[in-house]
Amino acid sequence: MKVIEGLLKIDKALPVAVYLQVTNGIIAYIRQGTLKPGTALPPSRVLAKSLNIHRKTVVAAYDELYAQSWVDVYPRKGVFVARNLPEVSPRYIANMVPRVGIATETLYQFTDKITTQHMFKRNPESNLVFNDGFPDTRLAPIELMAREYRRFGGYHFTPRYLMYGPEQGSENLRTELARFLFETRGVQASAADILVTKGVQMAIYLIAQILLSKGDTVIAGDPGYPAANEVFEQAGAELALVPVDEMGIDLDAVEDICKKKKVKILYVIPHHHRPTTVTLSSERRMQLLELSMKYKFAIVEDDYDYDFHYASSPILPLCSADYYGSVIYVGSFCKTIAPGIRIGFVVAPQNLIIQLAKLRRMIDRQGEQLLEEAMASLLNNGDIGRHLKKVNKIYHERRDILCGLLREKLGEQISFKIPDGGFAIWLKYRDGIKAANVAKKAAEMHLTVSNGVDYFYKSANQSFIRIGYASLNAKELGQGVDILKKAVDKVV
Amino acid sequence: MKVIEGLLKIDKALPVAVYLQVTNGIIAYIRQGTLKPGTALPPSRVLAKSLNIHRKTVVAAYDELYAQSWVDVYPRKGVFVARNLPEVSPRYIANMVPRVGIATETLYQFTDKITTQHMFKRNPESNLVFNDGFPDTRLAPIELMAREYRRFGGYHFTPRYLMYGPEQGSENLRTELARFLFETRGVQASAADILVTKGVQMAIYLIAQILLSKGDTVIAGDPGYPAANEVFEQAGAELALVPVDEMGIDLDAVEDICKKKKVKILYVIPHHHRPTTVTLSSERRMQLLELSMKYKFAIVEDDYDYDFHYASSPILPLCSADYYGSVIYVGSFCKTIAPGIRIGFVVAPQNLIIQLAKLRRMIDRQGEQLLEEAMASLLNNGDIGRHLKKVNKIYHERRDILCGLLREKLGEQISFKIPDGGFAIWLKYRDGIKAANVAKKAAEMHLTVSNGVDYFYKSANQSFIRIGYASLNAKELGQGVDILKKAVDKVV
Repeated sequence: MKVIEGLLKIDKALPVAVYLQVTNGIIAYIRQGTLKPGTALPPSRVLAKSLNIHRKTVVAAYDELYAQSWVDVYPRKGVFVARNLPEVSPRYIANMVPRVGIATETLYQFTDKITTQHMFKRNPESNLVFNDGFPDTRLAPIELMAREYRRFGGYHFTPRYLMYGPEQGSENLRTELARFLFETRGVQASAADILVTKGVQMAIYLIAQILLSKGDTVIAGDPGYPAANEVFEQAGAELALVPVDEMGIDLDAVEDICKKKKVKILYVIPHHHRPTTVTLSSERRMQLLELSMKYKFAIVEDDYDYDFHYASSPILPLCSADYYGSVIYVGSFCKTIAPGIRIGFVVAPQNLIIQLAKLRRMIDRQGEQLLEEAMASLLNNGDIGRHLKKVNKIYHERRDILCGLLREKLGEQISFKIPDGGFAIWLKYRDGIKAANVAKKAAEMHLTVSNGVDYFYKSANQSFIRIGYASLNAKELGQGVDILKKAVDKVV
Repeated sequence: MKVIEGLLKIDKALPVAVYLQVTNGIIAYIRQGTLKPGTALPPSRVLAKSLNIHRKTVVAAYDELYAQSWVDVYPRKGVFVARNLPEVSPRYIANMVPRVGIATETLYQFTDKITTQHMFKRNPESNLVFNDGFPDTRLAPIELMAREYRRFGGYHFTPRYLMYGPEQGSENLRTELARFLFETRGVQASAADILVTKGVQMAIYLIAQILLSKGDTVIAGDPGYPAANEVFEQAGAELALVPVDEMGIDLDAVEDICKKKKVKILYVIPHHHRPTTVTLSSERRMQLLELSMKYKFAIVEDDYDYDFHYASSPILPLCSADYYGSVIYVGSFCKTIAPGIRIGFVVAPQNLIIQLAKLRRMIDRQGEQLLEEAMASLLNNGDIGRHLKKVNKIYHERRDILCGLLREKLGEQISFKIPDGGFAIWLKYRDGIKAANVAKKAAEMHLTVSNGVDYFYKSANQSFIRIGYASLNAKELGQGVDILKKAVDKVV
């Protein structure tokens, strides 16, 4: 008897009801064999006393155990572990003693295919983070998502969306996306031209795996987006990097490469190049479309932040003017809802979409249909549009606050251009100030700020950093800049 | 003025509130430029009349337009399209007219990497489906999922789970999984030994991509699971198929292959082999573990339906007795909750888990953290355990009903063994009856039943089919068997 009383651990701070803690604890000991069939359980008042909980709680636990067939109840005798346990108990493999723990190393050999990975790292001791340009998840419309999920509970169509579904993604969502892309950026796709993905990341992975073979050339800007570059290299491609100036990627450099190599993909972020935030000029866009026709390469147009633009008129995506099927357009709602809600898309000619969808089926079968239906509903009823208006206003203000503070407090040590949109500014420390040193000093004061290493793909230029402003409010931006100022002062 | 009244389409049957349909319609026409800044909108009473809706609805729409800054309101004058539109209007690329629609073919060339794909196809005209063995989504605990999502709305930790998170999956979920796997099947993993995936499908994809190189050999049973075989081939491997008998896969055949080729992976479903439902015997399990040590190959143990067992005691997974790090254990909750809720896992030595997680990061960055937290909570509070008990009872009954009906009505034309668990039976038509012919006749009577082509990987044996019983209730099973009986009678 004492066994149970000694073994059960009750923690009233846990989110699990105490009676369930008692129930689950007892089930675990029955399963393990510590409590054998036929064993009497202590009277509820005894167990309640020794666990220091209310007797009714123990009664509720015993009721639950009875309902689940784990115990038999005999009037005037008491509660006993059931003679016929509700679950068949598993058998060990003949003559084999189960192993405690998983082996630390595999017996078979394999080579690590992925050695390094670029990523933004939050210093765990930081209270404040200047990230790489993420949205503020405190503004995420979680109550709208919860509302949609709540509605699913009452819908007779819900079971259908819980079954296997189309690997290309929800038809409702693709239809709404087509409308949204047309209304917001002049991309005239039909539902059939769209593949729903898990964020831009999966879009790029699928494209790379389908289009690239070992030794193919992929052109990308430098500084650029390492998470894309890595995916192209993983698919066997060789990267050919081109400089990025005030007008975007350097197209003369692109053509030089095309003359020498068979280029398969050019990867570009025309709206706000990442990391520098510059917009590819209208003239270069035309020129780029012409180059893609001349040299027959695919343009992967990553338009992850088109919906976030605060200044002069945005230029429509390359995709909207793609007459020949050169452009593969990728985007997402990871910045609109939240990075953790991973809905992205590819717009491309259908012969490519079909291949991408087949690969997607092999990788993870399909997306979350309920999430996709929820997104379709939020697009259809205008919630996404309203949310975008709301957060654009806030991010616009935050951009102005950060730029103002930086000019005021660090004007001598840094230079930057106010970005037209997005989530971050691209900042250059004046000569002699090393980003890594500033980051180190800032970390001591519990601020995470970029150390400047991940922007140029394989070079040592470390005088630039990105400072995300979107996820911090005015007070936090003020605190962040104050610490940054102190950190810079310490290294000069 | 007539423009709006003629253009707006109101559909009261839509789930979108009518006032929002009016609002969104007007915004669309402002965006398109049909309604220019400064244009007067019709008085609410006029518009209401012409659209045949209540005036208050139009007032609500105008209020919404005003709140969103799409219109200016001048007292005693009326409502006008705002002179300063709330969104910057996009610019076309210089000299380029936007293209109508997406090109149908890509300009650049690529070879289709994925040509055929095996999959269960529901006949669109069927009212009733004998599927390949899927759970009944009408029994999915959607109200529990909705409850968890509703809770997130009120939690201050929610914004954290909406941010980028660990590619290995939620730590809470991995901790709960470790407990669940130990309690239910003696697998003693720690959270660090587990990777959360999107179903078993992603688990197999990641393993194949990390472990396999072009020309490596993978052993699998035939008949087998084509969705796994395809992934191994996609990763460049050559399949070596071995027969499956009453005791599971033929291990003499496995050793013969190991003597001739460098085997990298053996893929096996020991609990209920798919499609035949046989359990790998205890003796063969020991022998298989020994072979893996001798020839140093990885065993990929797919245990997708361990939680569904109705008969004699299940045998613990190979993984529970893996002393040397040979076994990679994969499973999922896609059958527990619903196929559309894609949560799976890999248990393996940490040197492999690290590589799998890195690749996962490249593919789609991470899983849905909120979904993973919801699953962790459902495991922790015992909801999953209770749900499994409930549906096991139902599926057990359905298995017995189907088997009874088949014996009674089709006893002469078929043979099968009652499966110990899972979702389907493996049925052989007597000689002379072709599965494809039966399927065709059944389709005419609006029943989808397997045509027998997808079980043997590259062979023409088409006298076997799987009949899923789990997703149909007693009445539906009765109707299905009646039609199947008629269909069989027509082809003999």
